Amino acid sequence: MRLRNKPWAKPLIAKNSAKIVIEPAIYRGKWQSRFVKRAPLFLEIGMGKGKFIIEMAKKHPENNYIGMELQTTVAAMALKRLLQADEMPTNLQLVCGNGNQLLEFFASNEISGIFLNFSDPWPKKKQAKRRLTYQTFLSQYQQVMAPNGKIEFKTDNQGLFEFSIKSLNNFGMKFDGIWLDLHHSEANETNIMTEYEEKFSQKGQPIFKLIAHFN
Amino acid sequence: MRLRNKPWAKPLIAKNSAKIVIEPAIYRGKWQSRFVKRAPLFLEIGMGKGKFIIEMAKKHPENNYIGMELQTTVAAMALKRLLQADEMPTNLQLVCGNGNQLLEFFASNEISGIFLNFSDPWPKKKQAKRRLTYQTFLSQYQQVMAPNGKIEFKTDNQGLFEFSIKSLNNFGMKFDGIWLDLHHSEANETNIMTEYEEKFSQKGQPIFKLIAHFN
Repeated sequence: MRLRNKPWAKPLIAKNSAKIVIEPAIYRGKWQSRFVKRAPLFLEIGMGKGKFIIEMAKKHPENNYIGMELQTTVAAMALKRLLQADEMPTNLQLVCGNGNQLLEFFASNEISGIFLNFSDPWPKKKQAKRRLTYQTFLSQYQQVMAPNGKIEFKTDNQGLFEFSIKSLNNFGMKFDGIWLDLHHSEANETNIMTEYEEKFSQKGQPIFKLIAHFN
Repeated sequence: MRLRNKPWAKPLIAKNSAKIVIEPAIYRGKWQSRFVKRAPLFLEIGMGKGKFIIEMAKKHPENNYIGMELQTTVAAMALKRLLQADEMPTNLQLVCGNGNQLLEFFASNEISGIFLNFSDPWPKKKQAKRRLTYQTFLSQYQQVMAPNGKIEFKTDNQGLFEFSIKSLNNFGMKFDGIWLDLHHSEANETNIMTEYEEKFSQKGQPIFKLIAHFN
């Protein structure tokens, strides 16, 4: 998602340092201290405007959540949404950060699960290394993930989904579930949609989902 | 495929014992003796009326092929097609047999690759054990397959494809390629269609394909 700079973004972030972290490396190994209570910690990489992770946090008060976003302006939009939420969840922290620096941000076993929703497909072959399901990313996920932690991956992009199935499989991950048309499956009953997913699924094209864990 | 009994089927098979085998256990470990020359041996389980395997055999004279079919009447239809083929291939043998008895029919390492095309989806949960990508079948494939032998699986059935991706992955197989819309991909250039695939693909629904090997 690319947006014009919004002048209100940085001041809003600065004013809400209890809700959003701009230097995540400081909390490496200490993320639980940012929450009201200790609980399994789930991370969304590329939260966009935050609809998914805010709804997840509200639906599952038994867990803690982090929504991470590379673009400061977009993270600020998620922050705005969080601040305006009815019954603002206390089990969600937002982070401005790059998915490629996970090892600087999180210690081993610190994360209980990772969500990748509608990541940039980087469709050209030479861009494959930038895809969030490329092996170098998987290796980082593995290092921060607690035993049996799962990756939940959704996309509408067929090429990215084909790539990701092969990449996770070749990395040695085991698949827990796969859906080639999520919105017309039983799994849809508990599905929380992202902004993009809501908009896109109205066109009637399928949404793909894969859940997998490291061995 | 279910068909009414055809009275010509058994006599045609009896008359062409050089082309079709009705007691495959006899040739266990000795399949190369059925061919003009020794060559890597590829097996299609459930060949139906034989279009795919006949075209494969003609296209790849450097290999040997076996087309296997459980239903005698359907195998006889494949035999008819083979006998009527222009330049009848000498590198193809047909077999009446059950995919569930592979270990009785083939020795270890005897098969260089297996094709599963549009297998019966057995859609009910309690029928899962009958699907040709169920773990008990994969175990048999593994035992007869030479090192690096690949399974090539095609279907139009989304449920069967989802099941198969998970089943092959959980069995520890490594994926070489996956296509969620084969007929609109580069891989389609070399694709040989089955009868069913030809008929079905005209409706515009996607054909799924997975290639995988044992570790």
